[in-house]
Amino acid sequence: MKTLELNFKEKKIPLFLGAGLVFSTLFIEELKKYKAAKIALITDETVFRLFGEKLLAFLKAGGLEAALFSFPEGEQAKTRETKSLLEDQLLAQGFLKDSLFIGLGGGVALDLCAFLAATYCRGVRLVLVPTTLLAMADAAIGGKSAVNTPFGKNLIGAFYQPESIWVDHNFLAELPEKELLNGMAEMLKMALLFDRAFFEELKKRPPVALDLIEKAIRLKQQVVEADEKEAAGRLVLNFGHTIGHSLEKLENFRLGHGTAIALGQIMESRLSMQLGFLKKTDFFEIFSVFKKSHFPLVFSQGISPALLKEALLFDKKASRGPRFILLKEIGKAVPHSLSIEIPEAVLKETLVWGSRRFASKTDLPIYETTQTKGQPTLHL
Amino acid sequence: MKTLELNFKEKKIPLFLGAGLVFSTLFIEELKKYKAAKIALITDETVFRLFGEKLLAFLKAGGLEAALFSFPEGEQAKTRETKSLLEDQLLAQGFLKDSLFIGLGGGVALDLCAFLAATYCRGVRLVLVPTTLLAMADAAIGGKSAVNTPFGKNLIGAFYQPESIWVDHNFLAELPEKELLNGMAEMLKMALLFDRAFFEELKKRPPVALDLIEKAIRLKQQVVEADEKEAAGRLVLNFGHTIGHSLEKLENFRLGHGTAIALGQIMESRLSMQLGFLKKTDFFEIFSVFKKSHFPLVFSQGISPALLKEALLFDKKASRGPRFILLKEIGKAVPHSLSIEIPEAVLKETLVWGSRRFASKTDLPIYETTQTKGQPTLHL
Repeated sequence: MKTLELNFKEKKIPLFLGAGLVFSTLFIEELKKYKAAKIALITDETVFRLFGEKLLAFLKAGGLEAALFSFPEGEQAKTRETKSLLEDQLLAQGFLKDSLFIGLGGGVALDLCAFLAATYCRGVRLVLVPTTLLAMADAAIGGKSAVNTPFGKNLIGAFYQPESIWVDHNFLAELPEKELLNGMAEMLKMALLFDRAFFEELKKRPPVALDLIEKAIRLKQQVVEADEKEAAGRLVLNFGHTIGHSLEKLENFRLGHGTAIALGQIMESRLSMQLGFLKKTDFFEIFSVFKKSHFPLVFSQGISPALLKEALLFDKKASRGPRFILLKEIGKAVPHSLSIEIPEAVLKETLVWGSRRFASKTDLPIYETTQTKGQPTLHL
Repeated sequence: MKTLELNFKEKKIPLFLGAGLVFSTLFIEELKKYKAAKIALITDETVFRLFGEKLLAFLKAGGLEAALFSFPEGEQAKTRETKSLLEDQLLAQGFLKDSLFIGLGGGVALDLCAFLAATYCRGVRLVLVPTTLLAMADAAIGGKSAVNTPFGKNLIGAFYQPESIWVDHNFLAELPEKELLNGMAEMLKMALLFDRAFFEELKKRPPVALDLIEKAIRLKQQVVEADEKEAAGRLVLNFGHTIGHSLEKLENFRLGHGTAIALGQIMESRLSMQLGFLKKTDFFEIFSVFKKSHFPLVFSQGISPALLKEALLFDKKASRGPRFILLKEIGKAVPHSLSIEIPEAVLKETLVWGSRRFASKTDLPIYETTQTKGQPTLHL
């Protein structure tokens, strides 16, 4: 077991990294230190079935007063409505300011849990337990929390730091392929932005290795410690996300986040090349790594370049026209690239290229959705 | 014109205090310094009719790009639903991270505006323009923001500091009596907690005097600077509010906030006396000041001591039984009074006393409501 420390102005956050951490007496003992009146374990239905029910029993057996609240899985449930329903359930159960919330799950679940904690009684203490590669290597680090709206992803949210983060490798044992790709896409992003050597490692080894997860965490840590509230420095992490978020939104979130930002990274790398920043050889290497990693690089045929361009305007960075994090080389971003105005013709050319390459030729839905709708459920 | 400076860890906030500040070139020039892409002026319907429409025109004439969003007045509209509807309108109008929100209005409006700003794109810049005595002397100071839920007041919210605060005495010229009482009740609270001399002043002069408003601001400033996020120190400001909030909730927010916390302060002062902290003479002096200030000291006859006691358990401080800020003397609170467990018999006795004194003997509604329901409205 290893402990990293994330250093923010307001507090230092311990991050525990290892295998078998959460179902251990260490976890119970750490939780007891918070002296919370009550613990709310909060997760989505899928994670509830996989680990949540067991974890609730484990906490209770450890002598903690806990209840579990589960909500429907997926981006479509990450809404203000789900948050309100959870709030009402928590209030009805008498959870107050001196509660502790444990967010358990992937990126979507942690985003929602953290936002819920951020505004519940103006903020209750929060512990994050990521269960997916994406959540461990990325989403749990940095204090971002949010929900989606019909106008776009993550438009309503807050910056809110947990008390501790528990990266337990055991949760990854049965992670589905799609979830691995979600994590891989964010790890490749960190490598492309900051660290060519890490990029080379990710070409050679499966990303679930604990040292690779740790590397991704440390890279992200540097960025978020330097810019806690997304003043400007942190926006570099949006590489691949400007186009990626727009694709997700146009697909009504049926497209996997990993696939969306893989497509986004490829297209934004190409844009970097077309603007004269990125070498051709680097671009082709980037494109080839995403292909070899088995991302299903395809989106619905209905998403025209014009539709995509329009969607880009709802990006939070776009109020003076669409802006992008651009690459200078593998492992390095273009400094201040958000101040670069993108000539319309160049943007259009890349969107047309992306559409020709990746838009499906068939009418059929090209991926399945496991998302459900419905009310949150309380498990006592 | 005077400028105070509120010093918080994250930032220093200028507070401009004077008459005729907002409809002046100073205001326009300060706003221009923020270089916001767009300005959203946000207020309730009543303030919209009184000042909002005029202020929107003034901002536009000053060369600023602004739109006005108004929402129904009153505590009943201070909800998650109103916030969501406003978010959707703002998003539809293309307001993004680089916007500036101006919260214009009384305490309810500012609480909602500040919470809206706190979570919009994870936080946009906010300017507060209080238009009531309560908002000037109290609500605009300290960074608290919230909405109500069916379970109680202010249960969902955030701490979020504005860029600047504008206390413009001119807004008070036509303030209705009820609004004066709301402000007076909070000012008396500050005096009872911290400053006997201020209490004596408030007995002699109308509270709208600019120097009295400034005094209340400075007293509140000391508390909120020392405890930015309601760790413990700030809870002292809850004097009168434990019972006050419960009354408001049981009355479904038709009871004025000032009246509710006047009743709360009287009853919590009596509790302080019954517990042996507060002298009889001090209690009678407190009671008499509230009577002489023309607070309509009455609540619905249906609110029994038992109902009131049950409602106290939904207070954010109550997870180990109801807790109160108690008075030691006029101008001084009992230190650490939240750790004092209140004997059930003593609490009951005070609630029964309050009910005998203040519960209405008639079936008729004892106050009018001006509150409306409905959708927020956009004014371009």
